[in-house]
Amino acid sequence: MLTAKVKWAGDMQFVGQSGTGHAIVMDANVDFGGEDSGMRPMELLLIGLGGCSGMDIVSILKKKKQDIRDLEIKIKGQQADKYPKRFTEIEIEFIVKGKNLSEDAVKRAVELSMEKYCSVKATLEYSAKVTHSYKIENIE
Amino acid sequence: MLTAKVKWAGDMQFVGQSGTGHAIVMDANVDFGGEDSGMRPMELLLIGLGGCSGMDIVSILKKKKQDIRDLEIKIKGQQADKYPKRFTEIEIEFIVKGKNLSEDAVKRAVELSMEKYCSVKATLEYSAKVTHSYKIENIE
Repeated sequence: MLTAKVKWAGDMQFVGQSGTGHAIVMDANVDFGGEDSGMRPMELLLIGLGGCSGMDIVSILKKKKQDIRDLEIKIKGQQADKYPKRFTEIEIEFIVKGKNLSEDAVKRAVELSMEKYCSVKATLEYSAKVTHSYKIENIE
Repeated sequence: MLTAKVKWAGDMQFVGQSGTGHAIVMDANVDFGGEDSGMRPMELLLIGLGGCSGMDIVSILKKKKQDIRDLEIKIKGQQADKYPKRFTEIEIEFIVKGKNLSEDAVKRAVELSMEKYCSVKATLEYSAKVTHSYKIENIE
């Protein structure tokens, strides 16, 4: 069981604290009465997806003895036009940098995360079509 | 379209940055090779749910001229036993404090958020059964 609490901090500012003890500020933009002092709640879902899959891919590539040096993940989320504006489509792109990386190993790591391990992806894909891609940059 | 990027920061630590320019650290616990320097990715989903619904409820109660003084939101998420361990059940409790709060107004604000406006709830409920409750504490 995961837990969290969220507390109103005035106007549209909220402080979220996770059960593991870490905190984050959320806020709305000025048009919605906020001051843009922190992330939008929907952005947290995209970042969670990136973190979850990133942890999987680093773990798997290290187990496969791949010399991974950098991993950057770009995520885009499309919402429905009408309220409640759930996510309907999410694109995630993995840019993997390393030395002599095997394309097979990277492809397999991405697939294992997307299809077997990533809890955030497995949750979001019930609402949104999640598509993924990857790029490999081998460095000298 | 919402966007985010997530960058590997070593071991299981990742830094997520939202399209609106705010950043957060994510990390795994020690058992999974992390150092618990930040939230787990799945915790972000629960916090996003709290922030999203909290913004709705504060906005609606202010429009209804309710004298809301405090709002605390507690969230619990149950994951499936087996990988990919998506969220299957989420409970969210709203504790609303204020002066002479109308129970009808609070009930309606919670319902409007849960059923009509909250994008995070609308996304997560495709995977998880989301149940909600509220408590009102009128202060002198």
